Amino acid sequence: MNELIYEQPLNEKTRSYLRLEYLANQVQSNLDQDHQHRCFYPLFSLCELTERCDYRGEIIKDIDKQLINLKKWQHLPHIDEQQVEGYIDQMQEARVKLIRCERPGQKLKQDRFLSALRQRFGMPGACCNFDLPQLHYWLAKPWEVRQQEYKNWTEHFECLLTPIKLLLELTRKTTVYNPATATAGFYQGSSTQALSLIRVKIDPAQGCYPTISGNRNRYAIHFVLFDQQKHSDRSIDFMLATCT
Amino acid sequence: MNELIYEQPLNEKTRSYLRLEYLANQVQSNLDQDHQHRCFYPLFSLCELTERCDYRGEIIKDIDKQLINLKKWQHLPHIDEQQVEGYIDQMQEARVKLIRCERPGQKLKQDRFLSALRQRFGMPGACCNFDLPQLHYWLAKPWEVRQQEYKNWTEHFECLLTPIKLLLELTRKTTVYNPATATAGFYQGSSTQALSLIRVKIDPAQGCYPTISGNRNRYAIHFVLFDQQKHSDRSIDFMLATCT
Repeated sequence: MNELIYEQPLNEKTRSYLRLEYLANQVQSNLDQDHQHRCFYPLFSLCELTERCDYRGEIIKDIDKQLINLKKWQHLPHIDEQQVEGYIDQMQEARVKLIRCERPGQKLKQDRFLSALRQRFGMPGACCNFDLPQLHYWLAKPWEVRQQEYKNWTEHFECLLTPIKLLLELTRKTTVYNPATATAGFYQGSSTQALSLIRVKIDPAQGCYPTISGNRNRYAIHFVLFDQQKHSDRSIDFMLATCT
Repeated sequence: MNELIYEQPLNEKTRSYLRLEYLANQVQSNLDQDHQHRCFYPLFSLCELTERCDYRGEIIKDIDKQLINLKKWQHLPHIDEQQVEGYIDQMQEARVKLIRCERPGQKLKQDRFLSALRQRFGMPGACCNFDLPQLHYWLAKPWEVRQQEYKNWTEHFECLLTPIKLLLELTRKTTVYNPATATAGFYQGSSTQALSLIRVKIDPAQGCYPTISGNRNRYAIHFVLFDQQKHSDRSIDFMLATCT
């Protein structure tokens, strides 16, 4: 069964992290496969988000919090000590790199090719041959060459994206899924511990997707029938994980 | 030699046609290969451009002009009569379809799935799982299903895009390339006949791309070195076609 996972952040920080992680995945998919000019969308989104906000301070605080947790867990019984150590090493390495790096994206601002493209990418149908002859030239380069150049551009964001991926991985891994049922397509829950992320796993064969809302202590899940784009009134079984 | 062709429209109408043709090619490339959510960019660009402007009247005028030309040519000596007849048939068919069709894109406005997506697609990194759970659901459908749905959506624009492709094909086919040389990276030309499109064919091994400007009677071509993003001062050989 190919179940789908839907996630909803319950605070602004997790929302930003998920957005950046999504862009990191997009970048990876553009490195794996040639999507031509389309590869620039996530690159420019990363530029824009990191210009608006410097995430580094927040991430370092989160790494430090997680390092304290990990070091506590390390010597607990029944814990995979090696895995925990692996995370500690990765976190520490990511922390060093993040402190050393300059603000991600700054260097790319000076790239005249990228700047010219970025100005036009927001407009409808504006990556024509005549709008951007330099893009037409660039796209004719062999894929291996473009791939390497794309790698060089996107690497500027790695010091930011690597720890975010790690932090989200830990958030997800430390919570298990439990079966739940939405009566008449609706489910609500609460938690005394502050929640950061709700995860819903559901078989797409049920024909619906969840829309999730909430804050750190309460959340609600509505299931919407895709084909009719309206609220389901059926009883829906799904798996639920609430991450702190 | 894999030469690249650069085009510059010299009037607003040709500019619009090239933009729509570019989007038609993007749509086709998204039908040929699965580019996931990226397929929505040209679809929404088509929606936006056709909302801003109803191109139908202009296209019908152009078809009628071309039909008169084609019928003149038909009986000239040394002409491929069959090819001309083929164009006449295609033009007439496209004309009938264009007159019959309602304004392209209108129907898609009522599609709630597409409307929800379109609202978010302009924002940086805004096609996350939590922004658009319906997109997450849709992307999990088999490629053949998505391909068919994408085809149904984009077909709304076919009555517009087919004649545009035909008109541009005729514009291009009725002009031949002549060798030209840009002295110190610069070339300028003029024409007593009103021009609509400048075409430059050049081997990318020369390391430069043209930036073309002009109006219907005069045009200038500057060659820019891609790696340095600055004007070339070399003598550059290229092929030039000036279409009326």
